[in-house]
Amino acid sequence: MDTREIDTRNYTALLKKYIETQDEQALYGAEQISKSFIKKNILPEEFVNLHIQALLEIYPDLHDKIKPSMHFLLEAMISYGLAHQEFQNLREKQL
Amino acid sequence: MDTREIDTRNYTALLKKYIETQDEQALYGAEQISKSFIKKNILPEEFVNLHIQALLEIYPDLHDKIKPSMHFLLEAMISYGLAHQEFQNLREKQL
Repeated sequence: MDTREIDTRNYTALLKKYIETQDEQALYGAEQISKSFIKKNILPEEFVNLHIQALLEIYPDLHDKIKPSMHFLLEAMISYGLAHQEFQNLREKQL
Repeated sequence: MDTREIDTRNYTALLKKYIETQDEQALYGAEQISKSFIKKNILPEEFVNLHIQALLEIYPDLHDKIKPSMHFLLEAMISYGLAHQEFQNLREKQL
């Protein structure tokens, strides 16, 4: 199992837990996992993609609704990803 | 109607069009709208929030599934928002 697959599994498990319990502890997990993803240079659109995979696993019956609606968000996040990359380049130059 | 409300309406209309047609033209709209949002300093988590509002309007019957699952993504995007803000500050200093 590669790192990416482990990330997807961990994220899906956390998301599932939050959907079931809706407690603050699971929500805190979302913050922690996103911070670790930023450190690993995972871009916002990759993060959204991972969220889509997790949603499809949790709600397979919603495939036809989740897929297009979330693909649209994914496309929109690419611009944020470019801005994020620009930030990383700028920061590297400053270091 | 304030700017925020106009943005939400525009985004919802674009998303709806894409869900119905799934054509490239509507997808291109996602890219354009996100670029304009970045220019307006709208953070990624605010963008995700707007997507949630749009989804709830398009799929009101999915409220109980959309709300918690997307709230989790929203929380995760806050870290990306912080990184994005850091980028803007860095860029402003360089200008």
